[in-house]
Amino acid sequence: MLKIIPLGGLGEIGLNMMVIEYADSLIIIDAGLMFPEDYMLGVDFVIPDMNYIRQNKSKVLGIILTHAHEDHIGALPYLLRDINAPIFGTPFTLGVVRHKLEEHESLSPVKLHEIFPREKITLGEFELEFIRVNHSVIDGVGIAIRTPAGLIVHTGDFKITHTFSDMMTDVNKFAQCGEEGVLALLSDSTNVEKEGYTISDNEIGETLENIMSKSRGRIIVALFASSIARIQQIIDIAEKRGSKVIVSGRSIEATVTIAKELGYIHIPDDMEIDIRQVSNFPDDRIVVITTGSQGEPMSALARMSSGIHKQVKIREGDTVILSSKFIPGNEKAIAKIINNLYRRGADVIYEKISAIHVSGHAFQEELKLMIHLTKPEYFIPIHGEYRHLTLHARLAEQAGIPASRVLLAENGQIIEFDEDGGRIREGVGTGRIMIDGKGIGDVGKSLLRERRALSEDGFVAVTLAFDEETGIVVYGPEIVSRGFVFETETGHLLEDAICVVLEIVEDVEPDVPNRIRKIRERLQADLRKYFNFTIKRRPVILPFILEV
Amino acid sequence: MLKIIPLGGLGEIGLNMMVIEYADSLIIIDAGLMFPEDYMLGVDFVIPDMNYIRQNKSKVLGIILTHAHEDHIGALPYLLRDINAPIFGTPFTLGVVRHKLEEHESLSPVKLHEIFPREKITLGEFELEFIRVNHSVIDGVGIAIRTPAGLIVHTGDFKITHTFSDMMTDVNKFAQCGEEGVLALLSDSTNVEKEGYTISDNEIGETLENIMSKSRGRIIVALFASSIARIQQIIDIAEKRGSKVIVSGRSIEATVTIAKELGYIHIPDDMEIDIRQVSNFPDDRIVVITTGSQGEPMSALARMSSGIHKQVKIREGDTVILSSKFIPGNEKAIAKIINNLYRRGADVIYEKISAIHVSGHAFQEELKLMIHLTKPEYFIPIHGEYRHLTLHARLAEQAGIPASRVLLAENGQIIEFDEDGGRIREGVGTGRIMIDGKGIGDVGKSLLRERRALSEDGFVAVTLAFDEETGIVVYGPEIVSRGFVFETETGHLLEDAICVVLEIVEDVEPDVPNRIRKIRERLQADLRKYFNFTIKRRPVILPFILEV
Repeated sequence: MLKIIPLGGLGEIGLNMMVIEYADSLIIIDAGLMFPEDYMLGVDFVIPDMNYIRQNKSKVLGIILTHAHEDHIGALPYLLRDINAPIFGTPFTLGVVRHKLEEHESLSPVKLHEIFPREKITLGEFELEFIRVNHSVIDGVGIAIRTPAGLIVHTGDFKITHTFSDMMTDVNKFAQCGEEGVLALLSDSTNVEKEGYTISDNEIGETLENIMSKSRGRIIVALFASSIARIQQIIDIAEKRGSKVIVSGRSIEATVTIAKELGYIHIPDDMEIDIRQVSNFPDDRIVVITTGSQGEPMSALARMSSGIHKQVKIREGDTVILSSKFIPGNEKAIAKIINNLYRRGADVIYEKISAIHVSGHAFQEELKLMIHLTKPEYFIPIHGEYRHLTLHARLAEQAGIPASRVLLAENGQIIEFDEDGGRIREGVGTGRIMIDGKGIGDVGKSLLRERRALSEDGFVAVTLAFDEETGIVVYGPEIVSRGFVFETETGHLLEDAICVVLEIVEDVEPDVPNRIRKIRERLQADLRKYFNFTIKRRPVILPFILEV
Repeated sequence: MLKIIPLGGLGEIGLNMMVIEYADSLIIIDAGLMFPEDYMLGVDFVIPDMNYIRQNKSKVLGIILTHAHEDHIGALPYLLRDINAPIFGTPFTLGVVRHKLEEHESLSPVKLHEIFPREKITLGEFELEFIRVNHSVIDGVGIAIRTPAGLIVHTGDFKITHTFSDMMTDVNKFAQCGEEGVLALLSDSTNVEKEGYTISDNEIGETLENIMSKSRGRIIVALFASSIARIQQIIDIAEKRGSKVIVSGRSIEATVTIAKELGYIHIPDDMEIDIRQVSNFPDDRIVVITTGSQGEPMSALARMSSGIHKQVKIREGDTVILSSKFIPGNEKAIAKIINNLYRRGADVIYEKISAIHVSGHAFQEELKLMIHLTKPEYFIPIHGEYRHLTLHARLAEQAGIPASRVLLAENGQIIEFDEDGGRIREGVGTGRIMIDGKGIGDVGKSLLRERRALSEDGFVAVTLAFDEETGIVVYGPEIVSRGFVFETETGHLLEDAICVVLEIVEDVEPDVPNRIRKIRERLQADLRKYFNFTIKRRPVILPFILEV
């Protein structure tokens, strides 16, 4: 029996990870992370629960990476703590992975196998064939997986544009799969809400060229470090206008270096200069390529916008182009940077006012084309929140897949295929593991609840010591607060709270049994009531009551 | 000299408030609030700094409200603590204000004056004429303010559609102002990033009717409580299909009651039923109108989506329509509700997949039309972040206003007009006042920094008591943490931390001068280092060290 088990990505954007299993052969497709939700206070990022893989460690034949984005490779260092299987990826993907693993300490050596489109490899019961797909990062692939149960096609993240480029989606190979007979298509649901087709990168290039050719000052382009094809476009435009190019920022310098080594980026030798040389050239000869397009507060772009960047002081005449999407949750941070750039006199071009970015994920017409090409017996929407999966399921029905053969699965469920066909059954159970510092999964609901309470109204700590024998107060009550009230404005509240405490101490006399516990409880209740009445806030109350 | 002083709204979306002053006459236009930014942990909302008004209290002749949205009236209860001036507004606006003031305690009686479009009133040196504008809440007005320095036109929040409705923007009156000669136009910049025209509410109505006529189950429409015209549209469609209507939710019940009393909403007598009667009628005869379209976790819609609503259990066949915008910052909360509704089998219709909402703010072509109608000598963009004001300033230049007569002012600056023309000068200074519970303005940067630190990694408190005379430890060290580590997983860290503390106590012997201070400092530093090394987190360290 063939089992497909999504461990992440079917219920969220991000966290993509999937197990494909037949008898004793198990392969893993992608190992991605997700950035924390708003309520995950203090959490760095989230990875899928890999318990199922740990339990089936001995079966794992390989990890196949479809492309180099964090939501597909970011959990790899955590996966490699538990298993030691070879990793398969295209040259650019492996370049980024190698760099990533070098940054993580204490990982045992891993085997990295380069794969190429239209190449086939065999892993146990599976024959894998890689299919070029076009996406916002270069060198992405989908996978045709031939299994004893039939042919599974996994699209990876893709879009389809028909304008010529080096890395066009290999529609013919998908069509060949369709002719061969596809048991199940697993297809990217990210943009299923969008009607029509994505616009082509060529159009974006023309718009960028238009903007850059009009500018008479310095040009600063902010984008994702992984947008290698877009970076090449900008280099080409800069070359035409005779500008120097500066690549600035830790992550983008790393990806550009990898891409240059692999021949995916070409910059004429004398064209690239260092950020420290920015003042040696006339303004209209400077193009800076950097990151920070999501409003990251420590990025070069954020520093430029607030006037604290060492080499680049934004001034009238500069043009700043944010060539990327406003990711939901980041809008306010991005808007802040745009506002500051305008205040400093720059012209700012961003997605909302100009077509300078296109998504890397297929829109509805492309999604239907994929179904049309592969003509699958079963359809499984992947990569999306539940709403995306639902809408993609409906789209597949419109495209001719009978509703009974659309399998809308969620993380942790098992999609089974045998001679009786395909079905979903309750599965292995899965979840999201929060990473905070070096802590893996110790941050859970209760800890987040504590952080939430502290974040809203801070705390009030009361220290009080009694003489163990006489029951007389020998220290305190002393009150300390953080994040609760500002002491010069409302600090008298804390002084008044001391009276509340003293009243309790008087009430609960030394001979009362369980005195300390009683005082502690009264203190919690009475101070909560007192602060709610006086200032309508609910700080965490911390009584430190000692007997000495 | 005429002074126009924006106290809020020129630098953000929200917080709208403006002073207009000539000699001893001062009027206030709007008193709005803003919802907190992400970094304002625990803050309920934000109001403008009203210090300038307090200082000029005796001059204040009136508060004029352009419409009933919170970003124009929400700060009123706070303004009324300091001044007692008559309030002018249209009947619906005052209805909402009356309800709001009743909910706030301890406010002295205020005079509410009804105003009507094309009506004129005189306040000191000012003659005010109200001009009907169309917006997402009914009964909005702009204002023509005749001053000794010239005619000022303030648009309020507006859009212009040419499809007939009761409350169309009075383009002719704006044109008359243009003929009379406008010194300065102050115009709404919210949607200046959007090309073209807003689509009309009639089109939205047709789309809604289409969706509702196809549904065979219950229909639940979620929208803003203030969207009275949209609510009437839904009632009309429900009437056509013979459905009962349920209005559910505290805020929407209040606004609908006000609108009914004023004749702005008509529901046939037997058509409106209570939510408790929902099961007494067939599914295809039920239309529920409610709020919660921004993902508010306690709303009726959120409760329906998570299956805990008392009367309405969502099931296959139900249609849920979110007829409002996804406000940036709320996307994830809204998405969560949509996902849950789909999981329960409902069909969900929302802005991203269907044209069921239109903004209440003019797009570029409407903004140019406003400039064209009023032909102002000076142009002042209002209501927007700096980027919106900048783009609106550019649009005005395209519409023929010379750059020197476009005054791009920010909050707290003074826009002056006299015989030499108009100019901006540094002004009264202003800011944002954060409201947290009953605290007005005591939450500032340092308090937010404390809340931020606590929200990210919690705290670790160490209690330790020494005998004052011998210097011997008589209690502790006791370690308590919140929001830092989960004790069953990583709690051993805290036990190990006790050893770190004991080492310090041993190191700093009883005869060391300033022993307590030294121990406290070492404890902060060493524990910080220890936790950073072991788990890479930075909790707030709280040493409670007593001498008894």
